[in-house]
Amino acid sequence: MRAVDLIQKKRNGQSLTFNEIAFLIKGYCQGTIPDYQMSAWAMAIFFQGMSKKETADLTMAMAHSGDTVDLSPIHGLKADKHSTGGVGDKTTLIVAPLVAAIGIPVAKMSGKGLGHTGGTIDKLESIPGLRTELPREAFFEQVNEIGIAIVGQSGNLTPADKKLYALRDVTATVESIPLIASSVMSKKIAAGADAIVLDVKTGSGAFMKTVEEAEELALAMVDIGTEVGRKTAAVISDMDQPLGFAIGNALEVTEAIATLRGQGPADLEQLCITLAAHMAVLTGRTDSIEEAESLLRDALHSGAALAKFRAFVEAQGGDARIADQPELLPQAPETVSIVAEQDGWIASIQAEMLGLAAMKLGAGRAKKDDIIDYSVGITLRKKVGEAVTAGDVLADLHINDQDGLEAIKQEAATAFTISTEPPQSRPLLLSIVTADGITRLS
Amino acid sequence: MRAVDLIQKKRNGQSLTFNEIAFLIKGYCQGTIPDYQMSAWAMAIFFQGMSKKETADLTMAMAHSGDTVDLSPIHGLKADKHSTGGVGDKTTLIVAPLVAAIGIPVAKMSGKGLGHTGGTIDKLESIPGLRTELPREAFFEQVNEIGIAIVGQSGNLTPADKKLYALRDVTATVESIPLIASSVMSKKIAAGADAIVLDVKTGSGAFMKTVEEAEELALAMVDIGTEVGRKTAAVISDMDQPLGFAIGNALEVTEAIATLRGQGPADLEQLCITLAAHMAVLTGRTDSIEEAESLLRDALHSGAALAKFRAFVEAQGGDARIADQPELLPQAPETVSIVAEQDGWIASIQAEMLGLAAMKLGAGRAKKDDIIDYSVGITLRKKVGEAVTAGDVLADLHINDQDGLEAIKQEAATAFTISTEPPQSRPLLLSIVTADGITRLS
Repeated sequence: MRAVDLIQKKRNGQSLTFNEIAFLIKGYCQGTIPDYQMSAWAMAIFFQGMSKKETADLTMAMAHSGDTVDLSPIHGLKADKHSTGGVGDKTTLIVAPLVAAIGIPVAKMSGKGLGHTGGTIDKLESIPGLRTELPREAFFEQVNEIGIAIVGQSGNLTPADKKLYALRDVTATVESIPLIASSVMSKKIAAGADAIVLDVKTGSGAFMKTVEEAEELALAMVDIGTEVGRKTAAVISDMDQPLGFAIGNALEVTEAIATLRGQGPADLEQLCITLAAHMAVLTGRTDSIEEAESLLRDALHSGAALAKFRAFVEAQGGDARIADQPELLPQAPETVSIVAEQDGWIASIQAEMLGLAAMKLGAGRAKKDDIIDYSVGITLRKKVGEAVTAGDVLADLHINDQDGLEAIKQEAATAFTISTEPPQSRPLLLSIVTADGITRLS
Repeated sequence: MRAVDLIQKKRNGQSLTFNEIAFLIKGYCQGTIPDYQMSAWAMAIFFQGMSKKETADLTMAMAHSGDTVDLSPIHGLKADKHSTGGVGDKTTLIVAPLVAAIGIPVAKMSGKGLGHTGGTIDKLESIPGLRTELPREAFFEQVNEIGIAIVGQSGNLTPADKKLYALRDVTATVESIPLIASSVMSKKIAAGADAIVLDVKTGSGAFMKTVEEAEELALAMVDIGTEVGRKTAAVISDMDQPLGFAIGNALEVTEAIATLRGQGPADLEQLCITLAAHMAVLTGRTDSIEEAESLLRDALHSGAALAKFRAFVEAQGGDARIADQPELLPQAPETVSIVAEQDGWIASIQAEMLGLAAMKLGAGRAKKDDIIDYSVGITLRKKVGEAVTAGDVLADLHINDQDGLEAIKQEAATAFTISTEPPQSRPLLLSIVTADGITRLS
């Protein structure tokens, strides 16, 4: 078998077999197939696409390119969730204890973040004392005992995906649905969950700009799950503005705690309940979404979800008092406000721009080795659709020093557009994609 | 400027500017742009194509990536020809002295061959004593004196094309009209001729399988010439069988001499006259193709063309007696025949297969360092359309040893298909492509 013939086959619109795809991925990992052949192949895929079978084959070849996690020591069907990324996205901090509270085991491995704010692991590490590295045995034991553990990725998971993604990033081959779908799903499959719920964002602040594109990606991922025997569903939600009000690590933990207490922002709670409900149905915990949502709302309002969060923090060595006194989390010494310069309605809030401003304050990493300041970030005071009067505070910046502050304030202010007419309201939840197909919610 | 943005621009179907193309080619030669970006770019071009302007810009960027030859010390308008390659293609050996005989200077640089038989330089080197390396000054002087010189490529011509071609070869990005056209034309332009006539083959034995594809390639090359101010025309001819009867280095020189004497195979003479006539018109030597063809036929039959060939061989140190006594060329000690196994008509002769058989006899190089045996090869006795009786000789193999002979005989025999009905006759010359457009000849 020669790589050049396989590139040509794909270029000509034919499908590759499992053995052919495995040959490419294995050779690429071993260094016998060079970058220049893989990038040409990726570009051919950009134009010719991949069949469902090919996409699943590529996913499995990448999932098995390194270590895989065997979650069988944990009792019951394990659920995992994945977000395609967004500004102010603290859903894992809420969904994980929430589903654990209704009896679904969560054995989650998360990554550190590169970009506007930290990843889930960075957010958790803003909790004093909390450890995110656990030996495999202790990890399993904790899930069996309290139903939840969240650790940083360890071991050599999906090295083929890492190598291919880095290559795609510099060869203009990122924007391919089968390549994106197989990249996401290979990691989830290697991490071992039985059921996978995908939180796919769409809108100006997301990678998928339209709901149709988001649905296409979601369907490709659900198809992979179906093809390889993992129950998979996707929730498509709006990312035209940040989720909730908080952007920044400790600020987002604080907001997650409020939500677990049943006092969080409506949009955040709604998305978390929906994601959690699909995890409940996929793992067989409940028969219907409605039943799950009712159980989950009870868990939020009865304090069960917060209790699960408290137990989780304690089990991983963190200061569990923060569950009730979030003011014990790192706090920035100072806040400065951004105010509206005119009367009107908030027409849009560019999430990406606020994310970058938060990163410049120290909440995220521009480079891998940057150190995160857990305390800083941005809290919104207004969201899209609200009426404002000139001088109203739009957002507060939580800052630790004055360096470059004026420019950051300017950038954050530019993220808000105020119009003289109220904007058309746009629902948060747009579509649900399951093995049965796509359901538009609006 | 970043390479990834330029790949994306092309991927999205936009045209690159001259500066953008020059940035890629320059960076690639200097090693600042890696193979994996160039192969992704080439694949994007495969799918999105290139505008005329882009193709010309790429051609010029590659032409100027290394040395260029300034032919201005040679008086008059210089013509060059290029064949897209074929089995038994000895046209340069005939066309060069033929046009020189009617007063068009030929200052030609040719390559060594890789594949079935040698290149023009290998064929010339089968002439005892003939040198194909001349100092630049002597090269110019010889053209000014006798009107013709043919030397091997020296210096660092079009390194960008060499590097990009080698990359395309292993990334399934060879079959792109703008990339093929710019590759051919960059070499011709760097070699300095004012007028370029392209001999584009089509048919089962050629790279372009249909006349339409060949026309598209020819038009792309003629467009480049027009865009950059070099007079260019292309002749599209049939390569469904070998050209002439001889395949192999000294055997082809012998056939070229017969043709220069006016006693060559009809197809070979016809193609050579046509190519030469276009060189005459493009350089302004004659006003019309008809006038040129008449002059050229006179040169063949008066002995003027052969005299020019004799003078050329002598000037480059070769044994000029071979012009009249071709038996002085290297001759294989033995010949074996392939015979028809049934009565009928020759329906097809697969040129490629005979070429490979000739290479296995020693006439060509499989690898760069292989040593060519000038004496060996194949001479056809029958061509497509001729009637045969079982037992008739179809071809003779000129051999130097018996190693693997049976398999080679078998392979050569398989190249002939004999049918019970006479095949439809197919003309040799199919189209002429000039700056004025395409003219179908049949």
